[in-house]
Amino acid sequence: MQNEPDLNKFRPVDEQLAILMRGVDCGDPRTRDNMEKELGDRLAGSRDSGKPLRVYCGFDPSRSDLHLGHTIPMRKLRQFQELGHQVVFLIGSFTGTIGDPSDKDSARAQQTLAEALDKAETFAAQAFRILDRDATIIDYNHRWLEKLTFGDVIDIASLFTVQQFLARHNFRQRQERGDAIWLHEFFYALMQAQDAVALETDVQIGGTDQLFNLMAGRKLMEARGMKPQTVLTYPILPGTDGVLRMSKSSGNTINIDDDPGLMFTKVLNLPDEVVPLYCDLATRWDKATLDAAQHRGQDDIAGVKRDLAKEIVSTFHGNDLAEQAVADAARMHGGNAPSSAPVVDVSEPMSVLDLLADASLVKSRGEGRRLVAQGGVRLNGATVSNPMLKVHPQPGQEQVLQAGKTRFLRLTHPMPKVQRAS
Amino acid sequence: MQNEPDLNKFRPVDEQLAILMRGVDCGDPRTRDNMEKELGDRLAGSRDSGKPLRVYCGFDPSRSDLHLGHTIPMRKLRQFQELGHQVVFLIGSFTGTIGDPSDKDSARAQQTLAEALDKAETFAAQAFRILDRDATIIDYNHRWLEKLTFGDVIDIASLFTVQQFLARHNFRQRQERGDAIWLHEFFYALMQAQDAVALETDVQIGGTDQLFNLMAGRKLMEARGMKPQTVLTYPILPGTDGVLRMSKSSGNTINIDDDPGLMFTKVLNLPDEVVPLYCDLATRWDKATLDAAQHRGQDDIAGVKRDLAKEIVSTFHGNDLAEQAVADAARMHGGNAPSSAPVVDVSEPMSVLDLLADASLVKSRGEGRRLVAQGGVRLNGATVSNPMLKVHPQPGQEQVLQAGKTRFLRLTHPMPKVQRAS
Repeated sequence: MQNEPDLNKFRPVDEQLAILMRGVDCGDPRTRDNMEKELGDRLAGSRDSGKPLRVYCGFDPSRSDLHLGHTIPMRKLRQFQELGHQVVFLIGSFTGTIGDPSDKDSARAQQTLAEALDKAETFAAQAFRILDRDATIIDYNHRWLEKLTFGDVIDIASLFTVQQFLARHNFRQRQERGDAIWLHEFFYALMQAQDAVALETDVQIGGTDQLFNLMAGRKLMEARGMKPQTVLTYPILPGTDGVLRMSKSSGNTINIDDDPGLMFTKVLNLPDEVVPLYCDLATRWDKATLDAAQHRGQDDIAGVKRDLAKEIVSTFHGNDLAEQAVADAARMHGGNAPSSAPVVDVSEPMSVLDLLADASLVKSRGEGRRLVAQGGVRLNGATVSNPMLKVHPQPGQEQVLQAGKTRFLRLTHPMPKVQRAS
Repeated sequence: MQNEPDLNKFRPVDEQLAILMRGVDCGDPRTRDNMEKELGDRLAGSRDSGKPLRVYCGFDPSRSDLHLGHTIPMRKLRQFQELGHQVVFLIGSFTGTIGDPSDKDSARAQQTLAEALDKAETFAAQAFRILDRDATIIDYNHRWLEKLTFGDVIDIASLFTVQQFLARHNFRQRQERGDAIWLHEFFYALMQAQDAVALETDVQIGGTDQLFNLMAGRKLMEARGMKPQTVLTYPILPGTDGVLRMSKSSGNTINIDDDPGLMFTKVLNLPDEVVPLYCDLATRWDKATLDAAQHRGQDDIAGVKRDLAKEIVSTFHGNDLAEQAVADAARMHGGNAPSSAPVVDVSEPMSVLDLLADASLVKSRGEGRRLVAQGGVRLNGATVSNPMLKVHPQPGQEQVLQAGKTRFLRLTHPMPKVQRAS
């Protein structure tokens, strides 16, 4: 009985669905319902046959620093892994040479394959803080996309109308503003569609802004006589400002390489209204914990933020450093939340002393020097020993300067571009 | 002195320009002036070096029957040949698999390369009634286009914006009507651009509706560090109705395979207002003859039409058959122009007798039979010997049925589609 399925290999469909469908947003509820039904059927088939589902998400290697926003789909892939399914971490080594226009309102510069592969390496290494490295297949889409001929491209393009592309939010906006839409930007969806065909996927994961591209995959798979992939999209995580999509260019990121203290502080400073979405998308909490947090948030939003901050730090730095961050913060802040602290734009390097004096955190430069000498000044949680230490502008990172127990400065870098989270 | 140029090889630049620029219409006069200047410079360079210009026109092999409209650019190529330049007759063997959306207001069906090559053979054979076969290089664009990779296509597409395409008359119209524009239709211009690069042309010829595609060639050549080709476009020839672009689907063609009598009759029946354009585009007349015809047309448009009809018949059937057509027409028509004849739509095969009787060209079926027996009935100029002869619907051809000397019927086939000449 070689092919006898192992019925204990996968958890019951309902349990899997409850985990996997959490946070799914496919634009309209009917699409979500259809996808849930499809996923349920696939999971049932997988249990019957003992064959895991094949799930993928594509990642654009054009940014080398991973932030919390990138980790949302990775966390979902991780859930699939934990449920026993097969995960493909697809590096957009070919698509990266164009740049995804989905999350941009202007055309991005093209890069070479070599540049894309170079960035992809760092990117993948960071991704394994979330994904199970041993259970992850890494693939690169230049393997099949660079082999496509003009004829193949025509064949794929003939399935789509120009109007379908122009109806997309980002392209429509650019058209209305009179900004150029370069023809090759339309190719991004065609590439993603071919990825789905080449990988013979069951499920594709992505942000809601990717819905069009993921649906293109369904269309092409159907045209190729394949069962169209199930599409699961998730909301876009807003950055530390609570409004704009988290992105390096908006200067509102929580980077997974941020040290524990900085990461903790950034989460504590989040606007209250985005805390529920962060809990939903960026934690490993189960439904009961989530429900409890939501209930508690009505009276004690600061407490929920602390738990959220600890959970996020714990994800990337482990539990010990997370506990340490909680303790440090309690000691440093003395009960005063730094969100009330004044904000200073640091657009060029400035000394700690200048910053303290200019913002009147100290009464005189002399007091500033003394305070540093006494170990009473901290930059991002670390004690400052030299008052002339230069603080450098860090786009995408909020820094915190502390004088004594209660005086704080939040240091930001002016954002070069502004863009709404969709 | 092996490389000594032969200064007598080419005629003076001014003489060449006067012939080649005749009828050129590049949308706006400034573009025409620029192109004339460019062409002059190239012709001067050609005379200096003794090297002929390389001129090409692409032909879509999706129609196998050549009509007068197709011959306009061929006539221009012929002029280049007679002036000693090198002509490439480019068969769109690859582009034909998409179909040119330029002259259509709806997407055309794709065909296979084999189908396209098959049609191209008939098409090229017909073209040599105009072009000098020995001096013509025939080429096929699948030779280079089928080798392009996805990366190459991205590279070309990145030079153009979606807005540039949507500003084109035909695409804008379809967008306004809410008709689908399929993405691959945008690729047609990219292909033509690559043709120009592959052929390293000096000059490209085309209809005014092709201006966008020809200009795309200039853009790509510039991006490739080449001298951009000079672009010469010519007005679109209206069909026998004088309004719509000549095309098989509009049923208003003068086919180069029409027999002399039919061809002669069709030209005689042209609406007066298109006669000057026909003289300009479809004759071999020199400037003096053209000026004389235009002057004479004010008083004797019928006489100019006869000369025009004779000239066009002579082009495709030779001078003897043209003289014969003039004589036949004079005898048949007895001075009455068939344009006043009633028109009947033949949508299914009908007998000559039925047609005569139904249209009351004869008083009775008996009279019809007698008239046929006496040799008094002609179909398209040929005597009918059997009253039950079936007249078949011929899309794109007007047929003429004649009873006695003065009674005529014009037989047409309902047009499946209507489209404006641009």
